[in-house]
Amino acid sequence: MTSSTNMRLRLPLLCIILEVILIILFGALVEYNDDTHAKLWNANKSHSATRDDYENEFYYRYPSFQDVHVMIFVGFGFLMTFLQRYGFSSVGFNFLIAAFSLQWATLMQGFFHGMHHGKIHVGVTSMINADFCTGSVLISFGAVLGKTSPVQLLVMAIFEVTLFAVNEFILLSMLGANDAGGSMTIHTFGAYFGLMVTRVLYRPNLDKSKHRNSSVYHSDLFAMIGTIYLWMFWPSFNSAITNYGDPQHRTALNTYYSLAACTLATFAFSALVNPEGKLDMVHIQNAALAGGVAVGTAGEMMLTPFGSMIVGFLAGTISVLGYKYLTPVLESKLKIQDTCGIHNLHGMPGVLGAVVGAVTSALASPGVYGDGLQRVFADAETGKWNPQSRGGFQAISLAVTLGMALFGGLVTGFILKLPIYGAPPDTHCFEDGLYWEVPGEEEGHELNEVATPNEMEKLNS
Amino acid sequence: MTSSTNMRLRLPLLCIILEVILIILFGALVEYNDDTHAKLWNANKSHSATRDDYENEFYYRYPSFQDVHVMIFVGFGFLMTFLQRYGFSSVGFNFLIAAFSLQWATLMQGFFHGMHHGKIHVGVTSMINADFCTGSVLISFGAVLGKTSPVQLLVMAIFEVTLFAVNEFILLSMLGANDAGGSMTIHTFGAYFGLMVTRVLYRPNLDKSKHRNSSVYHSDLFAMIGTIYLWMFWPSFNSAITNYGDPQHRTALNTYYSLAACTLATFAFSALVNPEGKLDMVHIQNAALAGGVAVGTAGEMMLTPFGSMIVGFLAGTISVLGYKYLTPVLESKLKIQDTCGIHNLHGMPGVLGAVVGAVTSALASPGVYGDGLQRVFADAETGKWNPQSRGGFQAISLAVTLGMALFGGLVTGFILKLPIYGAPPDTHCFEDGLYWEVPGEEEGHELNEVATPNEMEKLNS
Amino acid sequence: MTSSTNMRLRLPLLCIILEVILIILFGALVEYNDDTHAKLWNANKSHSATRDDYENEFYYRYPSFQDVHVMIFVGFGFLMTFLQRYGFSSVGFNFLIAAFSLQWATLMQGFFHGMHHGKIHVGVTSMINADFCTGSVLISFGAVLGKTSPVQLLVMAIFEVTLFAVNEFILLSMLGANDAGGSMTIHTFGAYFGLMVTRVLYRPNLDKSKHRNSSVYHSDLFAMIGTIYLWMFWPSFNSAITNYGDPQHRTALNTYYSLAACTLATFAFSALVNPEGKLDMVHIQNAALAGGVAVGTAGEMMLTPFGSMIVGFLAGTISVLGYKYLTPVLESKLKIQDTCGIHNLHGMPGVLGAVVGAVTSALASPGVYGDGLQRVFADAETGKWNPQSRGGFQAISLAVTLGMALFGGLVTGFILKLPIYGAPPDTHCFEDGLYWEVPGEEEGHELNEVATPNEMEKLNS
Repeated sequence: MTSSTNMRLRLPLLCIILEVILIILFGALVEYNDDTHAKLWNANKSHSATRDDYENEFYYRYPSFQDVHVMIFVGFGFLMTFLQRYGFSSVGFNFLIAAFSLQWATLMQGFFHGMHHGKIHVGVTSMINADFCTGSVLISFGAVLGKTSPVQLLVMAIFEVTLFAVNEFILLSMLGANDAGGSMTIHTFGAYFGLMVTRVLYRPNLDKSKHRNSSVYHSDLFAMIGTIYLWMFWPSFNSAITNYGDPQHRTALNTYYSLAACTLATFAFSALVNPEGKLDMVHIQNAALAGGVAVGTAGEMMLTPFGSMIVGFLAGTISVLGYKYLTPVLESKLKIQDTCGIHNLHGMPGVLGAVVGAVTSALASPGVYGDGLQRVFADAETGKWNPQSRGGFQAISLAVTLGMALFGGLVTGFILKLPIYGAPPDTHCFEDGLYWEVPGEEEGHELNEVATPNEMEKLNS
Repeated sequence: MTSSTNMRLRLPLLCIILEVILIILFGALVEYNDDTHAKLWNANKSHSATRDDYENEFYYRYPSFQDVHVMIFVGFGFLMTFLQRYGFSSVGFNFLIAAFSLQWATLMQGFFHGMHHGKIHVGVTSMINADFCTGSVLISFGAVLGKTSPVQLLVMAIFEVTLFAVNEFILLSMLGANDAGGSMTIHTFGAYFGLMVTRVLYRPNLDKSKHRNSSVYHSDLFAMIGTIYLWMFWPSFNSAITNYGDPQHRTALNTYYSLAACTLATFAFSALVNPEGKLDMVHIQNAALAGGVAVGTAGEMMLTPFGSMIVGFLAGTISVLGYKYLTPVLESKLKIQDTCGIHNLHGMPGVLGAVVGAVTSALASPGVYGDGLQRVFADAETGKWNPQSRGGFQAISLAVTLGMALFGGLVTGFILKLPIYGAPPDTHCFEDGLYWEVPGEEEGHELNEVATPNEMEKLNS
Repeated sequence: MTSSTNMRLRLPLLCIILEVILIILFGALVEYNDDTHAKLWNANKSHSATRDDYENEFYYRYPSFQDVHVMIFVGFGFLMTFLQRYGFSSVGFNFLIAAFSLQWATLMQGFFHGMHHGKIHVGVTSMINADFCTGSVLISFGAVLGKTSPVQLLVMAIFEVTLFAVNEFILLSMLGANDAGGSMTIHTFGAYFGLMVTRVLYRPNLDKSKHRNSSVYHSDLFAMIGTIYLWMFWPSFNSAITNYGDPQHRTALNTYYSLAACTLATFAFSALVNPEGKLDMVHIQNAALAGGVAVGTAGEMMLTPFGSMIVGFLAGTISVLGYKYLTPVLESKLKIQDTCGIHNLHGMPGVLGAVVGAVTSALASPGVYGDGLQRVFADAETGKWNPQSRGGFQAISLAVTLGMALFGGLVTGFILKLPIYGAPPDTHCFEDGLYWEVPGEEEGHELNEVATPNEMEKLNS
């Protein structure tokens, strides 16, 4: 194979062309919304006697946005630094494709979710939604981690963001689905899209790089930074775009309990499946988060803390078991090489979350929700609300998502297979050195040399 | 001793049993509160013409909660990664016992602090309180760090959370004490409880593991992540559950100044007590935080920035001196092996904070507080307020806390001494390898092998 | 040279004297403001029927403050840990000088920005402003990183904070400049001040320490923690002290887009300027942030997302090119040894931001801003507003800032040149061991020794 991994022209060209296109489209299509526009906000204010600056949506959404932002850039970025020699790429490419995706997502989501006189309106809510869409791309990144060039990743992001917006439009606008925390739109979609991409990009000789496809002591600690941030801020993630008031508050609370229960399940099963009862960092880093994924749909509903804990416990359990027993089978039988095990963290827990959401929707009743019913189920306002059919639509939404993700991943995978992107050879996967200037030598030697105790003593005398 | 450290059955059994009990109790006892319940929130809203979704307590407490949450999981977790070979356990067991404790604390605190028709009501305030209680357990964890199995830690958490809730009830509800930032309830209690536990678990042969009871270069940097997050968010911690308005604002401000002054004291005394004038990472990592502990009670009062700075400066000073001169004595004379030096960070500064709180309470006057007096001192509302007796009750609260902590730690210590928990032998303390799958080898060799410059050149050509 | 680097007396004396002075001045001059004072807040509340505790500025400024606080302590602190043997000093000295500067800045800014009956009023806004001023000192720290003792850094902070406050007063109060995110007051000032200091402190024999003036693999990952936090929270930084409502919301949005575009430019040009197309961590760590600097003045204006993206793209481009082509020339021709390349991250992008601000001011019109005009341009309220002259004043502000920074840096540099501060010799720059107790040995050996597989097996049996 003559393909070079040199990025000197490919990466700059793609980045610059993409950014120029983005800038042109933003210039033509994007406007400040009513809460960010100097003229519109102040005009609206004077129309309403009681409305004041404190009621700008900024004050009620921005703290959630910042937590989501941390999850996208620190959470995902550092979670993937567990590989011994792929830390620069994990956090660096995560940074690059997230910075691109959030811009592209603003356009795609704006286009599908309703233009205003031909313009896309932006503000803190569009920022959250763009970050959500970006999260989906980063999930897929986890499946192909270490095996793709940054150019491939950007191309994947172009397609995935687009299809994400289409799928989101079908679910939220056409099927009227509930999915505030994105069990379906973000996690299920991102996972199965990524799994299909990595299936198409199957590398039969990947074991030539297997000595690098593992962690070292400190890389696992860096990864725990990502894990802990994802875990802590997941309540903010699931509640970031719910309705104000009780739904947002309740979503955060449900997610908090689900994650706590999930963590105990993760530690329990991680020790149980190991012959010596030793805990596995891979499980702790990943499976402990499955509880957040699994209440992404039902979190805003009256799931109760009790229900949230059961869901979280189940999610942690299936996630650990997936890492232990399913991932090896997926690789050997189905040729799915899933570097981060996204099937266990986002795939199965995402489907679980969709099912829990469908069931919880179907069980909803005015007796439980009172006047709050229509705050959660939008069609309750129209009077056409029927819990069983709502549950049915939720189930259909899951099916649509799986179909869109698998089909989209298939097509995108074949596009990414073209030998023009500078993908790493099988012998050099999971290796920063291909795309990064890596500092020459490790400290060991240097350290003892810099100053002898004698010299030090003199200096300090 | 025939005790095995194998966790294969012990840890899963305990985790699963505990989580099942938690789920059952939550199912029986826990309900959404008025601000998280779909029916109740919306019913309340329509009763009050002016109340709207923006006034949900979520918007006024949740940012504080998130900061506290970061302190509990990143702050405590990474602060303890300073040991060279105990990073997985530090951040991992911190994660496990915190996830358990916050659930158990929700029940215990809910039970003692007032049930509503037999139900415990939960929302963002209960989340903050549960995290606070968890903080106390993590302080005690610092004393026994490296010398306990995860099963022991969970058992310790069961007892400590329970006693924390009892002590908190006595202080806040019976004695009417002020302690918003927990100088007494959290820091003093957690410290002396943990010190007593580690006293009972005294290991005469611990020096067999002493080569591992120290840091390496990068482990100290990981620990600084914890330190800095604790330092930055301490203003949020101390102010998280004060009354709204000026008390919350003032608490954050006082804590900010106390910590800044404390940091200068820490650097000053760390250099002063070293023969060569070199700074000690242990002091910087820990003593710089003592200023937050020491204004945990008086922070909400009219302590003034000036007063806060004096308290912070004193706290930093005694904390550094404690690390240097007291910790070795505690170990050699009193047989208290305090891995993280919690006596210096939480013990003495907690007592200082309690004393400062008592004095500041005794000096309070309507002339200084105006109509704000009863916002800080609840009994000022009843007219029975007497500053001197208030100060006296604060002092009694400290005594009660010390008694509860020492007694609780004693009993818990003896329970933890039973040879059934898989505690590490004296020769293998401070060692991740007992309870974790640790990656096989360090990078050194691997790194230089992965790709020779020649290969790289070919790949990039 | 007989100068000793021993800090045993110097550092403690300076820290203690400074803190005592601060405490005395705070005692004499500083008071709670209306929103933090128990008496004043509650008195104000009862005068206004509708004002309640939820309207305390705490709830609208504190989340921004916390993000800024993270940038100052984690962002700057960890960004500078990239050096292989200077991590303790980077994050530690950052901590020390920031803790001092925020106290000193509170006094200086309070003095210049308006006393209230001889008293400085403090609250969350003064906390943000003090952190901003601190940021400026930390920028200068980047230029002299590795070449100064902590005593020198504290002395530098004393002078820089003072001059910062003077410059800020001239710009904001006398010239009526807009500079909410500090392109001029923070970045341009801090950069050129620091560059002049490092010029005066020029070390002709610095290449004796050049083997330590570079990164290692894990130090680059620690630095990325700083980078990512700065990047994520920059929207909060630029918007932290704008007017409430649309200006704050818009500033965050503009900064978000500018940074995203800047990141793509950074990756593009980093690959382009490398012969093998490899990315350089120095660029990613720094240049990707230039987009935040460059919209520090215009961010609150109607720059549009489109305009923000153009500015961000330009900023990233000049920053990478600066690192590649300008920094070596500055060092060889102008004798400016700029350790972190602050000229590329804060200097040039700061000037760009000032120019963009001047142009955007000059182009402002009531047609675009409507009633929001005076919310952004304070003098529009007085009727004396003239966009061209506003733009002119912005340009004058840049010139004043450059003059103040260069003059201040010159004087401060000569003060820091005195041989009394224990500065490191040329042979021991970039070395923690001079000022810190550094743990004795790296892990390598220790690790394999702690427990043989056989021992482990026995323990787990």
